[in-house]
Amino acid sequence: MVTKNEGSAASGPFSGLLVIDLTHVLNGPFGTTVLADLGARVVKIEPPGHGDDTRTYGPFVGDQSLYFSFVNRGKESIVLNLKEDTDRALFLNMVRQADVLTENFRPGTMARLGLSYETLSEINPRLIYASSSGFGQTGPLAHYPAYDTIIQAMSGIMSMTGFPDGPPTRVGTSLSDLCGGVFMFCGIASALYAREKTGKGAQVDVAMFDATLAFLEHGVMEYVATGKPLERIGNRHPFMTPFDVFSAKDKDIVMCAGNDHLFAQLCTTLGRPDLPEDPRFASNQMRTAHQRELKVELERSLKAQAAEHWLQVIHEAGVPVAPLLNVAEAVEHPQAKARNMLIEAGGIKMPGNPVKLSGYPDPTVRTGAPSLNQHGDALRREFAVAVSLADH
Amino acid sequence: MVTKNEGSAASGPFSGLLVIDLTHVLNGPFGTTVLADLGARVVKIEPPGHGDDTRTYGPFVGDQSLYFSFVNRGKESIVLNLKEDTDRALFLNMVRQADVLTENFRPGTMARLGLSYETLSEINPRLIYASSSGFGQTGPLAHYPAYDTIIQAMSGIMSMTGFPDGPPTRVGTSLSDLCGGVFMFCGIASALYAREKTGKGAQVDVAMFDATLAFLEHGVMEYVATGKPLERIGNRHPFMTPFDVFSAKDKDIVMCAGNDHLFAQLCTTLGRPDLPEDPRFASNQMRTAHQRELKVELERSLKAQAAEHWLQVIHEAGVPVAPLLNVAEAVEHPQAKARNMLIEAGGIKMPGNPVKLSGYPDPTVRTGAPSLNQHGDALRREFAVAVSLADH
Repeated sequence: MVTKNEGSAASGPFSGLLVIDLTHVLNGPFGTTVLADLGARVVKIEPPGHGDDTRTYGPFVGDQSLYFSFVNRGKESIVLNLKEDTDRALFLNMVRQADVLTENFRPGTMARLGLSYETLSEINPRLIYASSSGFGQTGPLAHYPAYDTIIQAMSGIMSMTGFPDGPPTRVGTSLSDLCGGVFMFCGIASALYAREKTGKGAQVDVAMFDATLAFLEHGVMEYVATGKPLERIGNRHPFMTPFDVFSAKDKDIVMCAGNDHLFAQLCTTLGRPDLPEDPRFASNQMRTAHQRELKVELERSLKAQAAEHWLQVIHEAGVPVAPLLNVAEAVEHPQAKARNMLIEAGGIKMPGNPVKLSGYPDPTVRTGAPSLNQHGDALRREFAVAVSLADH
Repeated sequence: MVTKNEGSAASGPFSGLLVIDLTHVLNGPFGTTVLADLGARVVKIEPPGHGDDTRTYGPFVGDQSLYFSFVNRGKESIVLNLKEDTDRALFLNMVRQADVLTENFRPGTMARLGLSYETLSEINPRLIYASSSGFGQTGPLAHYPAYDTIIQAMSGIMSMTGFPDGPPTRVGTSLSDLCGGVFMFCGIASALYAREKTGKGAQVDVAMFDATLAFLEHGVMEYVATGKPLERIGNRHPFMTPFDVFSAKDKDIVMCAGNDHLFAQLCTTLGRPDLPEDPRFASNQMRTAHQRELKVELERSLKAQAAEHWLQVIHEAGVPVAPLLNVAEAVEHPQAKARNMLIEAGGIKMPGNPVKLSGYPDPTVRTGAPSLNQHGDALRREFAVAVSLADH
């Protein structure tokens, strides 16, 4: 049975914090989900109408969008029209009491609404104001439209993913959205820590583009070393061999033998003592230079037995080896279960929280995502303007 | 000219924090680089011999490994033999004064060295002790060897990346290593904030496997909705069309027209008013069902002109469009420059810090990675045991 969010915040390092969450779709909401998982109270402000667009995106379980549910668990929802006086007053009252405000509109939108960092930090100097966007708040592309695919294309990550004889390949998840979200969380957590020392808030400005560039590692190294972009190398390692996907009789496995000792162990296990003797395969450097020929030789042996056999004997020989799992096999793996990485929130299965911290629970059942305006009445009472004027 | 690290910590939200960094290779060092970028003093403990293995990995600029330099900028280095009494005493003295300790050994290694969280938190209850590993400190695979490729294979991300008629594809960067590192940073920053309230340290346990599962989004949604794993769909969007890579006359571009309005704008710009009239392309759902036929039609028009032409006119029509850039084009892009995302550290160009925070500098020139034991003498003086006993 699908049960909706009852508004109970999780226990965690950020318990007691109030986050006003204006983010929508994927990148911002992913970042604020980490805050909610770690105990912050996250109040999602949604626009009149259907609220966050992703409420209308599939796939659905019952009447719930999984897309919305996955990145809004544990949050509260209120519909506010920020261009309307009463709602705006309520919102500003909430800002006075909040620790963090997050938004991922196109740069300039918040300023046009009269809700820039400069304005809001005047009414709450302790506010941490975090913006996530495609290209950031500054620079020539600040206002350029930015879907995940556009950032993946422009960051170079697609150019690095795929095979030498194939096309640039999109990472099969919204990598740039998610990197932007997680680095937004990093900025917020850093600013919260600093506020404990300074008493002051700060502005966090994270770009999906910047976040993806920070993840390029080898691609940038190659460019810096040679002045040329890295070519696509498929599934193999740039300088360790054998370190790739290989075909056994029935399916593929991954083997990683990055030094002479592991290579010798692997060859013994495969019944191929001839390979380490072959001058083409005498060192890691030689093996990398002849990786194609070596792969043919290794697969000739691997194809004699099923993957299950090789996974066992190669592992027993101390050589790193693994199956290629699909998502169903991965999330249902005993390791994922042991780590609470497939949880239930609002009755829906979804990935758990990867930040495991002693002293706090890591529940396998969490509060679900809110229905639209589910906490509207309660929040309107709590942040009613009369109360705030009295406080002021 | 290549200049080495002079030991000056950056200014940032974590200024004044002392981090003992036992991490090596990629995943841990990536996380502690974010700490260093944001002002923490990070002291890297390296084993006798050649130190961190990546010091021997290419590519090189002069005598410096780019691999090592990219994820160790701004840190200090000391060689310690933790099995030797004098070094061990110095290390424990450092632990007494540290805020954070990080390590990414195989689970169990620190306990065998007598340096478990339980032991070290006794001598410093405020210590935040962060471990990053392939599969985490718990669960049946805790001791399983874990290179990035193994985690990518077992997490399902490879199964989701690539084309329907092609093989599972490794993300062209060490995604699982980097996700593990950034979530380790998230755990540390969260624990540091909580310590301000509780006065107590905590243990952070992050797994590359968990971190990658948290990044699967659509793959897990599809499995939860249908019970089946997601099939590879190449570069297109699962439910918005046209939203893919398309070939112009000379090269490929990305176009993202996720609704009827944008689709109509795109077709007008391409001189194809017939397409929105075609019943196969009448709605986003119909376009997704007929995405292959639509792609043929769009590319028929796109191939008449070069990418540069289309990038301009489609953008002017308000439809999200972008070039596919290689890494060289991406990091040298004016947007990357405007955002300080290609910096120089120790004379070497590398990606900058994506966490932009008001009130702190975001320098384009940073301190480089240390040479092996560069700060050994100074650190031995600073953390000399006699002084610590007096303090104690």
